[in-house]
Amino acid sequence: MKIEFTKMHGCGNDYIFFNCINHDINKPEELSKSISNRHFGIGGDGIVLIYKSNKADAKMRMFNADGSEGKMCGNAIRCIGKYLFDNEIIKKKNVTIETISGVKNLTLHIINNLVSSVTVDMGKAEFLPSKIPVKLNGEKIINRKISINGEDYKITCVSIGNPHCVVFQDNIETLNLMSIGPNFENFPIFPERINTEFVKVIDKNTIKMRVWERGSGETLACGTGACAAAVAAVENRFCNKGEDIYVILKGGELIINYTNERILMTGKAEKVFDGYIEI
Amino acid sequence: MKIEFTKMHGCGNDYIFFNCINHDINKPEELSKSISNRHFGIGGDGIVLIYKSNKADAKMRMFNADGSEGKMCGNAIRCIGKYLFDNEIIKKKNVTIETISGVKNLTLHIINNLVSSVTVDMGKAEFLPSKIPVKLNGEKIINRKISINGEDYKITCVSIGNPHCVVFQDNIETLNLMSIGPNFENFPIFPERINTEFVKVIDKNTIKMRVWERGSGETLACGTGACAAAVAAVENRFCNKGEDIYVILKGGELIINYTNERILMTGKAEKVFDGYIEI
Repeated sequence: MKIEFTKMHGCGNDYIFFNCINHDINKPEELSKSISNRHFGIGGDGIVLIYKSNKADAKMRMFNADGSEGKMCGNAIRCIGKYLFDNEIIKKKNVTIETISGVKNLTLHIINNLVSSVTVDMGKAEFLPSKIPVKLNGEKIINRKISINGEDYKITCVSIGNPHCVVFQDNIETLNLMSIGPNFENFPIFPERINTEFVKVIDKNTIKMRVWERGSGETLACGTGACAAAVAAVENRFCNKGEDIYVILKGGELIINYTNERILMTGKAEKVFDGYIEI
Repeated sequence: MKIEFTKMHGCGNDYIFFNCINHDINKPEELSKSISNRHFGIGGDGIVLIYKSNKADAKMRMFNADGSEGKMCGNAIRCIGKYLFDNEIIKKKNVTIETISGVKNLTLHIINNLVSSVTVDMGKAEFLPSKIPVKLNGEKIINRKISINGEDYKITCVSIGNPHCVVFQDNIETLNLMSIGPNFENFPIFPERINTEFVKVIDKNTIKMRVWERGSGETLACGTGACAAAVAAVENRFCNKGEDIYVILKGGELIINYTNERILMTGKAEKVFDGYIEI
């Protein structure tokens, strides 16, 4: 069967998008594993399937390059906003998307009748360890000292629909993430594995980060990871609540605004090409 | 301008193919740099442009991911054979392709009216150092001891249309090619830089290799590199002239048959998808 797809990215976090409104895709886990391969497949951090929804304007399912299903992806959901508007499937500026993490509200920023960037209401930060989940005591894990594979770290844990562990340190450029990342990802206190952000504070409104995503390894950017990093920066008093925080990722920049009620994330959504593949 | 392309690979050595028979592409060097990027572009080891030829059935130009022009690529040229036949541009089994390294003869192996694999006559091996080019004395460089950045190596040098340096050693799996590759590539005795193959001999008809390509870094496979490795294996008496030598690369397998008159290379050519991109 020949099917159409669109390659898009947010901050270099790139996915293969399929319109499943009229026809579903079988075995998306296997498809993601094979076509995400960057030499033998289309290449990407994973695949995103767009469906009709009973609760929202559309529904997303996403699968990482290892075939595991993701609950939500801040970079991918911005691209869905662009996909729906630019392809004239939904022609309005305020769009709702159903995800495993709930319904998300998007505000599309339009230039020349095409979506240039998108603001996503990422919902509330969740700190309760059992909800993240993290197997540690207390109501919040902020700057908590733990030892992972013999190394001491101070971690801040938060769920942005998916679990994150944030570590502040200044040497992020030289960090050997290839070896440290899997140690966090598979550490027993994280029963659903974990996404880990290593964050350097530049000033009160700017932080720089690298991210290790469970199932994908180091990526150029992670939308929920940028939110987690900004939330952790506020909770650790490096930045202020309610102010725009510029998060510099390897693949681009995101603007995060965190209050007790919601986290807003704004960033570009970019289409690279359309294609069709025999599957 | 919206243009069509096809993503294809030979042994995981993947290129973006453009049909330039009716319309040329401007600034292919810059295009290759931008669209070869695996997160922000289409992703590939480079681009290949297919033209009409006065001397042959078609002409190829290829550009690496860094924008430099390649003389010839054994994996890409097999894909050109498949492209021309499967798209019914040229409907015969023996096809000639003009390259910067001269006209190459292809034999297409067809299954269900589609090309499955291709044998390429890669021409004669050239050993003369000034023709490779390598700035060393003698008529041939076979198992010559040299020191590169403080490390001793025994090198065999050969041109298969482009310059190669072959090193036989058993620890190829654990080799830190990321640091060693650039040392070879930029070593002053190679005035046009160099492709380097690290080769382990399995038996008289099987070798295993890793390759560092100038302009691209480590790749899953290199057709001329597999030829160079097989030629060097014969010249170093690990394998026999005129016999099929199976070359196991990270991305697949090639069969090389080397005599004084010509080198034949046989391997698969695979299409991944078609697409169109705004440039």
